[in-house]
Amino acid sequence: MPSLTLTALPGIPLVRPGDDLLAITLAGLGAAGLTLQTGDVLVYAQKIVSKAEGRLVDLATVVPSARAEELAAVTQKDARFIEVVLAETREVLRVRFNTLIVEHRLGFVCANAGVDRSNVGPHGEGTAEYLLMLPADPDGACRRLRDGLRAATGADVGVIINDSHGRAWRQGTVGVAIGVAGLPALLDLRGKPDLFDYALQITQVGLADELAAAASALMGQADEGRPIIHLRGVPYPFREGEAQELIRPREMDMFR
Amino acid sequence: MPSLTLTALPGIPLVRPGDDLLAITLAGLGAAGLTLQTGDVLVYAQKIVSKAEGRLVDLATVVPSARAEELAAVTQKDARFIEVVLAETREVLRVRFNTLIVEHRLGFVCANAGVDRSNVGPHGEGTAEYLLMLPADPDGACRRLRDGLRAATGADVGVIINDSHGRAWRQGTVGVAIGVAGLPALLDLRGKPDLFDYALQITQVGLADELAAAASALMGQADEGRPIIHLRGVPYPFREGEAQELIRPREMDMFR
Repeated sequence: MPSLTLTALPGIPLVRPGDDLLAITLAGLGAAGLTLQTGDVLVYAQKIVSKAEGRLVDLATVVPSARAEELAAVTQKDARFIEVVLAETREVLRVRFNTLIVEHRLGFVCANAGVDRSNVGPHGEGTAEYLLMLPADPDGACRRLRDGLRAATGADVGVIINDSHGRAWRQGTVGVAIGVAGLPALLDLRGKPDLFDYALQITQVGLADELAAAASALMGQADEGRPIIHLRGVPYPFREGEAQELIRPREMDMFR
Repeated sequence: MPSLTLTALPGIPLVRPGDDLLAITLAGLGAAGLTLQTGDVLVYAQKIVSKAEGRLVDLATVVPSARAEELAAVTQKDARFIEVVLAETREVLRVRFNTLIVEHRLGFVCANAGVDRSNVGPHGEGTAEYLLMLPADPDGACRRLRDGLRAATGADVGVIINDSHGRAWRQGTVGVAIGVAGLPALLDLRGKPDLFDYALQITQVGLADELAAAASALMGQADEGRPIIHLRGVPYPFREGEAQELIRPREMDMFR
């Protein structure tokens, strides 16, 4: 009977800059009594990957540019925060009170380029004075975790880093994949016939986004509650993939 | 250990107009050896709900309007198909070759108002000559299924109807909730403190969309392969909800 099981790895500590997510994952799998199998997927909350990478900015060191001051006046956000957002931004798409929607340097369209206040400073201290940026190279981070898990366990798994994004047209954030390795981000079903041999109208499925959303529902929103989710039972063959597959090219996007 | 388990109910027959989805669900749960529990969720693929409701249009009976002929010339789609789309449409948002993005009469922004070719005619025959529209009232259909399941089993469950929608900015379709009953569609986390007592920046989570996406990953795309998914382990308290919560009001939508 086809089934998909998601398990939140227990006992994940507060992650600090320099921490080894591979070791943390292996300990969590052990604590869960799970033996990794080929075809499993691990989903990591963006925040712990960013923290492990030390993607922190000390607000006290940030000097806002004129452009940041200008956007701060419209949004009523801290100009230093905006400065850090702009450093991660390729294009500003919408600016309103309390709202700044941009294209991130990696192509994702999201609020504030994914920059958030951090609850952990560079030495692990609780603080309001640091900002956390997205991982430097989320696809690369996924590949390194995938390679490490393969070396440690022999299993070929998929790895996803997810983040919560708002959407056009719909209320509420959903988990999406900002990093992928070892599984198709986009599932190409073009030409696959349905039961009566018509070609399917739907051509491509955002598989990694669907799995990222599933994991997000179990993670909850508290920063470090359940930041690593193990999935078993994804009913598709794996191939190498990357989150960049999920980004609609600018010239094909009718809603900007 | 927090976990979320999705099970595709086995042995679901091809659904035809007039079929009783409640009876089909109870039979599927029995075949899966599952005893329904309060807090479980059932996710139904839109197509089987629409088929059970007989939301079919015989293409041979459709006379396209001038507006449909005009949009057919741009999109290169069948003008009769467009006519049926327009009957389900509140506003046309984008028209391009092979593309028609609209606001559905229920508020969802999606391609072709969710209208698709049907592989089943009104008497169950395989045919290319019928179109299938979205359910008449997806939230109402969910409430009726929820009430029926409660009466039959005593369990208070959540019910979702999902469909695959394209997105602005991102490639690939993902499952979203077009009907909801018995659980929050939108999860309000405003003011919930994180580990260091800051208010969370993220205010609302599209929980029903995340669960719809999770179910979609297990359903696959073939029309009637795995159209009913059982979920156990959703880690949030239930309340009455509806898919309309997920629709961003037009005046708050910056991307139309």
